[in-house]
Amino acid sequence: MKIILTTLQVLFISPLLFALNVNAENTTETNKWRTVPADTLMVMSIDYGDKQAPVVFELAQQFAPKHVAHFTELAKQGHYDNSKFYRVIDGFVAQAGPEQSETEQKKAKTLAMESEWSFDKSPSFSVVQQQDLFAELTGISNGFAIAASKQENKAWLAHCPGVLAMARGNDKDSATSHFYITNGQAPRYLDRIMTIFGRVVYGMNHVQAITRTAVIDGDTPVSEDSYTKITSMTLMSDLPKTQQFSIQVENTESKAFAKKLDDRRARNHEFFYRKPPQVLDVCQVPVQSRIVR
Amino acid sequence: MKIILTTLQVLFISPLLFALNVNAENTTETNKWRTVPADTLMVMSIDYGDKQAPVVFELAQQFAPKHVAHFTELAKQGHYDNSKFYRVIDGFVAQAGPEQSETEQKKAKTLAMESEWSFDKSPSFSVVQQQDLFAELTGISNGFAIAASKQENKAWLAHCPGVLAMARGNDKDSATSHFYITNGQAPRYLDRIMTIFGRVVYGMNHVQAITRTAVIDGDTPVSEDSYTKITSMTLMSDLPKTQQFSIQVENTESKAFAKKLDDRRARNHEFFYRKPPQVLDVCQVPVQSRIVR
Repeated sequence: MKIILTTLQVLFISPLLFALNVNAENTTETNKWRTVPADTLMVMSIDYGDKQAPVVFELAQQFAPKHVAHFTELAKQGHYDNSKFYRVIDGFVAQAGPEQSETEQKKAKTLAMESEWSFDKSPSFSVVQQQDLFAELTGISNGFAIAASKQENKAWLAHCPGVLAMARGNDKDSATSHFYITNGQAPRYLDRIMTIFGRVVYGMNHVQAITRTAVIDGDTPVSEDSYTKITSMTLMSDLPKTQQFSIQVENTESKAFAKKLDDRRARNHEFFYRKPPQVLDVCQVPVQSRIVR
Repeated sequence: MKIILTTLQVLFISPLLFALNVNAENTTETNKWRTVPADTLMVMSIDYGDKQAPVVFELAQQFAPKHVAHFTELAKQGHYDNSKFYRVIDGFVAQAGPEQSETEQKKAKTLAMESEWSFDKSPSFSVVQQQDLFAELTGISNGFAIAASKQENKAWLAHCPGVLAMARGNDKDSATSHFYITNGQAPRYLDRIMTIFGRVVYGMNHVQAITRTAVIDGDTPVSEDSYTKITSMTLMSDLPKTQQFSIQVENTESKAFAKKLDDRRARNHEFFYRKPPQVLDVCQVPVQSRIVR
C-alpha cells in the first residue's frame, strides 16, 4: 500500500527535521561527525519473541572509566549472555542482569561511584542551558548530556532517556553488574547518585520494545517466560568483521552543533506562530547518529 | 524459567515503586481514585505485524472540548479505521491519520486552537513546581500536566510523554484530523501552540512499540507496508458491553496525591544517600491508572 503524503503531513515539519535540514547544508564542515571507536561501542543483541534486534551503546570512557572497563570485562566473559530484562517499567527504566546465587553475589566485585568529576577538569562541551531546573548549567560533551555546578566545582552525566547506568543497593558503592537503561522522561533526581557509563547510539526503538514486566493493577500479569532476553553483549571490535559496522555521532563540540542549539532556541520557522521560551531541556536535544558502511 | 529475585533486584527499590507503596497504605481515603467516564475514554486498537493491542486515551473534555467533540465524531464515522502511523520518530512523536485526496483535504473542517485558558478560571490542580524551566508554575489537574503563567493569566496542557494532540500546518488554526502522541522527552517548546486534547491512560508500552518510520542515515529504510495500522478508534462506551472495561486514574487533587508529590520532593528513602534538589519535573511525576473489572 502506497501512502500519499498529504499537505498536512508535509506541512507539519518537525523542528527536529528542520534542524536536520539546516545541518545537512553544512557539508563543508568536516568535523560535523565523529566516528566512535569500535572498542567503545557495545553491541547488545536482544531477543523478544520471534525478533532479534541490536542495541548499540557508546561507552562513556572519559566519564566513568572503571565502570566501562568492568562492564567490558564482564561482557567478554559472557556474563550477560542469556540474562533477562526482569524489571521494566514504562516511562522509567529497563533493568537487566543475570540470576545469581547468594554466594555469587557475595563474591561479586563491587564498584565505587563514578558519578561526577571536577568541573574545572571537564572535557570540552557545548553549553545548552544556564540555570536548568536541576542544575546551574547543562551541556553536551561528546554526545553525552552533562549538568554542572560551578559553585561546587562538579559536573556529572545527566539521566536523559537512553542512558546506560549501573543499578545498586542502598549502599552507594554496591553496584556489581546489573544495569538499567532509562526509557522515559529523564529521571534527573538520580543524577550524581547513580553511575552512568554509556548511552544508546543505535536501536532506542528496540529498547522501547522491551517487554514491560510491570503492569498496572487489574491488568494481566506478564509471565517471566516472555521477558526480553539478552542473547549477547559484545564489543563491536570483537564481532566478526562481516558483522561490524561503523557508527558516527554528531560532533557536539562543532560549530554546526552550536548552530543547531541556537536554532532550537530561536525557533525561526514559520510553524512557530508564537515563539516558545528561549530555553532548552538538555535531554530534549537530539544528538544524531548515522551508520557508515 | 523461574527468575529468582536477587538481593540486588530487591534492593534497587525505585522511588516510583516506593511512592506506590506509600499510597497503597492510604486505603482509608476513598477519593484516591477517580473513575473515568466510559464516554471520555477513547480506545484505539493498533495492529503491528501479528499483534493487536489496545491503547486507551482519556479525552481532555474540560480543556479542549471542541477538539474532543470533533475527534469523537470522526472516530464514530470510522475516519481513523485502517489509517496508519506514517510519521514516527523515536523520542519525539508517533503521528497518524488517513490518506486524503486534495479535495477531501480542502473540504475538511478545520479547528481553531484550544491550547490555553484563563488561569483564574482554571480547574483545580495540585501544584508541582514553582518556576519550572518552561513556565512560572506547573501542576497536575485531573491527571493532566499543566503549566501556567500568572502574569499572563494563562494556563495550558504541557507536552509530557503520552499526550494526544492535533497536528497542523503552519497556520495556527489549520488542524483537521491527523494527530500525534508524544513518545519521548517532553517537547515542551510545543506547549501553547498545539492543541493537546487527551492523554494515554492505558497502553503506553504499545505506543512505544509502534514502528518507527524514520531511521538514521545508513540504516535500512522501513517499508510502508510495515507501518503500524489503526484497526479501530471507538469510545469505550460504544464498545460491546463484553469488551468494555473500567479505568480509574489517581485523583490528582487528593491528599494522597499531594503527599506523593511531597515524598518525591523529599526523597527520604535510604537509597538516596545524597538528596537530589527538591524540585519536580511535572512530566516525570507518574499518574497511575488501574483497571477495575
